[in-house]
Amino acid sequence: MIIAVVGSGTASDELCALAEEVGREVARQGAVLITGGLGGVMAAASRGAQEEGGITVGILPGTDPKDANPWVEIPIATGMGQARNVIIVTAAHAVVAVGGEYGTLSEIAHALKIGKPVIGLRTWVLAKEFAEQDENIIAAFSPIEAVNMAIALAKE
Amino acid sequence: MIIAVVGSGTASDELCALAEEVGREVARQGAVLITGGLGGVMAAASRGAQEEGGITVGILPGTDPKDANPWVEIPIATGMGQARNVIIVTAAHAVVAVGGEYGTLSEIAHALKIGKPVIGLRTWVLAKEFAEQDENIIAAFSPIEAVNMAIALAKE
Amino acid sequence: MIIAVVGSGTASDELCALAEEVGREVARQGAVLITGGLGGVMAAASRGAQEEGGITVGILPGTDPKDANPWVEIPIATGMGQARNVIIVTAAHAVVAVGGEYGTLSEIAHALKIGKPVIGLRTWVLAKEFAEQDENIIAAFSPIEAVNMAIALAKE
Amino acid sequence: MIIAVVGSGTASDELCALAEEVGREVARQGAVLITGGLGGVMAAASRGAQEEGGITVGILPGTDPKDANPWVEIPIATGMGQARNVIIVTAAHAVVAVGGEYGTLSEIAHALKIGKPVIGLRTWVLAKEFAEQDENIIAAFSPIEAVNMAIALAKE
Repeated sequence: MIIAVVGSGTASDELCALAEEVGREVARQGAVLITGGLGGVMAAASRGAQEEGGITVGILPGTDPKDANPWVEIPIATGMGQARNVIIVTAAHAVVAVGGEYGTLSEIAHALKIGKPVIGLRTWVLAKEFAEQDENIIAAFSPIEAVNMAIALAKE
Repeated sequence: MIIAVVGSGTASDELCALAEEVGREVARQGAVLITGGLGGVMAAASRGAQEEGGITVGILPGTDPKDANPWVEIPIATGMGQARNVIIVTAAHAVVAVGGEYGTLSEIAHALKIGKPVIGLRTWVLAKEFAEQDENIIAAFSPIEAVNMAIALAKE
Repeated sequence: MIIAVVGSGTASDELCALAEEVGREVARQGAVLITGGLGGVMAAASRGAQEEGGITVGILPGTDPKDANPWVEIPIATGMGQARNVIIVTAAHAVVAVGGEYGTLSEIAHALKIGKPVIGLRTWVLAKEFAEQDENIIAAFSPIEAVNMAIALAKE
Repeated sequence: MIIAVVGSGTASDELCALAEEVGREVARQGAVLITGGLGGVMAAASRGAQEEGGITVGILPGTDPKDANPWVEIPIATGMGQARNVIIVTAAHAVVAVGGEYGTLSEIAHALKIGKPVIGLRTWVLAKEFAEQDENIIAAFSPIEAVNMAIALAKE
């Protein structure tokens, strides 16, 4: 199983601490972590997962694998710019969003569009009026709850 | 100048009427219209633009140009699925969002991420707390106002 | 109908003259010209088509529409790097290759893979042994013959 | 280090045996194997690598991770169709081509275009006249030699 963690490339210490704990829990539960491979939330989640012995994949916007943060074991340089956001959520069975700005919002939107579960930790709240499908972000109150929900929903 | 109109592939008559008028005004002002090339808001905007003699481009998710609605003069079949949403807003100088579900939200998010002006007609309202940059959706109250703002901001 | 002309971004005067004549003929026959939007063969073909009053589309690798050569009427900035090569041939009904290096070869290969006719003018010759399908590059001896074949095969 | 093995989705037993041995050697040398994740050469290489305990990544054209062959440990569903070929070679430090039809040729061309070493085993032979750069496919005579060359050139 592959769990995506999405969030900003620059993030507060608090959000990074949450993301790191999400990454740890993803690894503890035996899932592969996939992120955008850069800094902030992506780096924190990868660090957490790697410290627990998990596999970490980073889907990079540029063409150089060295752009990846040091905790990405498998950097996938795509050269596709923002379109790499689509790949992250397509490849994942479920998505955990931690904080996040517009790049993260695009990932959340793509994930919901294709029916992937999205669990949110201090992230965007989306008005239901435009969500024709029933899918929406599911708020979690802790990193462990977020990962539990992601894995439970991914298994369904 | 290229103006994108984004919105759902299935939309209410009211939203389609707005989108058609947006398309008309884009053409009247001499801009090229770019959409996702399918139905609903995309078809209505293309119809409006074509009826005013404008050029209409449709960036399609599939591989068959025949997927385009009849008012797309230049269908660009990408075969890239949802990643075509990134192309629509990258190619445009400004974006007008009419209504919209998650696919539209992804386009809005990608546009704001790369600094393209986004004008909204009855579309998503995005909380400012996550928008680190000052960019956000600018609400318009009529199709003509939307296009005027899109073109004014695109020219800056 | 959309005809792609593919070839190097830097090309000899002789190849550019061929490409320009190909572009002219595409426009004379009422087809839309699609290229990669940059220099060399792409610019020459676009110039020829525009001088005959045709519509010229350029699918750009970068994010800036200003990267397009001056004869591209509709620049589509994709931000997808080399992946834009796939879009060019997917969007076209047939492909004319003029000279060409590795980028052109990738376009030829993608086109043959998805069953699009490829007409060649002084371009790659591909060994049949690996072409499991019957498709291969069809050599033309003049720009006008190339476009005639492209349009005839695209119509089939 | 990441080594790509590219080749047809349906291939002869002989080519599959070569690909499997290439995969084995990639894993023995401690490199990550990346392929297109489907059948034929891709499956054989992945099987070889997995049997030696290596990590296998499959970059899939579709949206379903289950499209991957059983020896892909980390399936990356892109939903981008043929454009996934660009990702495979962009992500790799070097490419080994085993046999191959047009899809493989597109991967070889993209790799040479961006300056990645390409080692060939019974694959396309490309005329030098169009290869403006000095890069071209380097023929290998055995799977082990192919991987040795790939890793040596990737390290440079």
